[in-house]
Amino acid sequence: MDIKSYMDTLGRQARVASAAMARASTKAKNDALSELAGLLRAAGAPLAEANALDIAKAEAAGLAAPMVDRLRLTAKVVETMAEGCEQLAAMPDPVGEITGVKRRPSGISVGQMRVPLGVFGMIYESRPNVTIEAASLAIKSGNACILRGGSEAIQSNLALWTLVRQALATAGLPAEAVQLVETTDRAAVGELITLPAYVDVIIPRGGKGLIERISAEAKVPVIKHLDGNCHTYVDAEFDMAKALVVTENAKTQKYSPCNATESLLVHAQAAEAFLPRIGAVFAGKGVEMRCDAAAKAILAAVPGANLADATEQDWYTEYLAPIISVKVVADLDEAIAHINKYSSHHTDAILTTNHPNAMRFLREVDSSSVMINASTRFADGFEYGLGAEIGISTDKIHARGPVGLEGLTSQKWVVLGDGHVRG
Amino acid sequence: MDIKSYMDTLGRQARVASAAMARASTKAKNDALSELAGLLRAAGAPLAEANALDIAKAEAAGLAAPMVDRLRLTAKVVETMAEGCEQLAAMPDPVGEITGVKRRPSGISVGQMRVPLGVFGMIYESRPNVTIEAASLAIKSGNACILRGGSEAIQSNLALWTLVRQALATAGLPAEAVQLVETTDRAAVGELITLPAYVDVIIPRGGKGLIERISAEAKVPVIKHLDGNCHTYVDAEFDMAKALVVTENAKTQKYSPCNATESLLVHAQAAEAFLPRIGAVFAGKGVEMRCDAAAKAILAAVPGANLADATEQDWYTEYLAPIISVKVVADLDEAIAHINKYSSHHTDAILTTNHPNAMRFLREVDSSSVMINASTRFADGFEYGLGAEIGISTDKIHARGPVGLEGLTSQKWVVLGDGHVRG
Repeated sequence: MDIKSYMDTLGRQARVASAAMARASTKAKNDALSELAGLLRAAGAPLAEANALDIAKAEAAGLAAPMVDRLRLTAKVVETMAEGCEQLAAMPDPVGEITGVKRRPSGISVGQMRVPLGVFGMIYESRPNVTIEAASLAIKSGNACILRGGSEAIQSNLALWTLVRQALATAGLPAEAVQLVETTDRAAVGELITLPAYVDVIIPRGGKGLIERISAEAKVPVIKHLDGNCHTYVDAEFDMAKALVVTENAKTQKYSPCNATESLLVHAQAAEAFLPRIGAVFAGKGVEMRCDAAAKAILAAVPGANLADATEQDWYTEYLAPIISVKVVADLDEAIAHINKYSSHHTDAILTTNHPNAMRFLREVDSSSVMINASTRFADGFEYGLGAEIGISTDKIHARGPVGLEGLTSQKWVVLGDGHVRG
Repeated sequence: MDIKSYMDTLGRQARVASAAMARASTKAKNDALSELAGLLRAAGAPLAEANALDIAKAEAAGLAAPMVDRLRLTAKVVETMAEGCEQLAAMPDPVGEITGVKRRPSGISVGQMRVPLGVFGMIYESRPNVTIEAASLAIKSGNACILRGGSEAIQSNLALWTLVRQALATAGLPAEAVQLVETTDRAAVGELITLPAYVDVIIPRGGKGLIERISAEAKVPVIKHLDGNCHTYVDAEFDMAKALVVTENAKTQKYSPCNATESLLVHAQAAEAFLPRIGAVFAGKGVEMRCDAAAKAILAAVPGANLADATEQDWYTEYLAPIISVKVVADLDEAIAHINKYSSHHTDAILTTNHPNAMRFLREVDSSSVMINASTRFADGFEYGLGAEIGISTDKIHARGPVGLEGLTSQKWVVLGDGHVRG
């Protein structure tokens, strides 16, 4: 197979389909999504068999059990995909919205219209449900997409893609609006990220290594999510009960998500009161605490605490595990400076009862989500009301934080005149 | 000079300064702009002498007169720069604006806060007034910037930069908020566009070759403006008097700007009536018409018309000269398809009295500015009310069309809670 010409064909077809998708009616797009929900629920044996092939292959290859589990299209996963499609169908259409129209002194009226980006490429690993998430977001946002899933999920992805094409056809939309790369040849990724004529943006989802490689090699813009080294900072003036539940939730509600807190900063005036209490919570849950000297001195008194000395590297680390780095800071300035230096600019929170400090933190912490008195775990498209998210961006350009339908669109200028000319 | 370590130092200094700029008060930023306006007006001999050095060198090198003229800091150019600074000072501060705060079912309130991008790099040629435009936009938008002007304007740029640093110091803002690359070594550009740790976005202004080279080699996002192959389409139902003045203005008010119309499309039902009239206007102004067969057959009757056969390449061409390509199209579909194929997605206009057609054109033409019954020459930051523009983007990501203060910012999410945790 000539990968270059194959990917070129996918690109060309996507570009053609994107024009039809951009002018598709809201009804047609919603019909496709409702149809897809129905097809998913009725998929039955063919989907299960395709999925079983991927799982058998993964088990034969000796993949770790959690990795195999990620591949599984259980009844619950299928139902969640179907519900996701229905939720998107119920959301307002972002395309065509005209905002900010103002009359200018010249007599023209100028505003902005929201339009699809065109074609996005999605590169992802393992979980086959991403195929449906990406396809449904593409449909609702009026984009075409080219999907490149992991080779370990190829049979499941092909089966899901068949349903997507059926749904598009039923709604009278072009089948090429959603294309899956059918080869597992790695060269296809290299082609996909270097087709600026056909692909407007690449969204990679996967490990940091994959994303860094794609960003370095891409010749089209990349909406990327690197790591989530999130901080919770407890200020001098704080509410003990709330700070305890929020910090516990931020670190321990789930260890693996990118929005879990990885580093706890405590104001020196709060440390003596707060650290022993939260240390006891962490000790009870088996969370290792990697501390600076001041924090360790206080936490040493906590029975059962698993303590270690934090290295410089710890302040940069996203553990995704029952480990947290802990530091005592002299004041809000030090907290903000520490976060802006070590954070991955994903999500950082202040727990405080002091309003000026809350507002300074909000303004000065340079992260895609900045929170006051809330768990960092809230950084999520669904929690933010986006309906669904295609990813979380740690970039500053275009979209920051959770990226939903709006992140898959841009705005063009519209000018309404009545024979106006420039003087 | 070790260019790599020099640029690295500029980058590091810009990153540090950007934090101070991001939290700078609106008053400090406006004070710096007002101060800069005053310094420009009072600059006198030192600025004139620096400019004279550049001009003498350009003339000695045998630069064409229009190129030499671009370098000239006449009293009028200086006054325009000063007024630009004052206009920016009078504009609302984009930074800190919080929008769309909504209460979520979980109890948190979620919204977005507008924040500076951080550091932008600007690469430009000849006109030294760009130094002041970029510096003043950086100051107002709370960004730091690294400016790399053309070697032919280096003395003027250095003199202007001295004024900028003075203004920053007077307002208590860091001098490193605006840095000029002091070497004319071309290697500096290569370094500037590959410093993702220090530079958040690159804005090149110059010829298409320069911009394509920068886009291909950059390792940071580029807000780029390629060419402006703009179309004016005259629909079947149209107002003759308005169509004539708008088309004339779009093509002939100025030939060199990127928003001048380069291609005229006319509906077959309008061609017999409209083409001879506009052809006479173009003939009177010495505008060459490169036509398809149908247009040429009609225009042949126009006395003094300078006609040629359009080649396939003509439909793609941005002439920036008294030349226009002319084509008769069968219907609106053909007009939209032609524009979406050949246009540079900059600015395209329909002249029509038919409302459904106007709305279809608005929705389906994939360009950064789409106009109804107005001259394409309006595509401009000042005409759109942006106050000033750092450039015009023909990209779809982040910013499309004229880029002003808002294009130099992004939005971060803000979450306001009161001890809320994720369930």
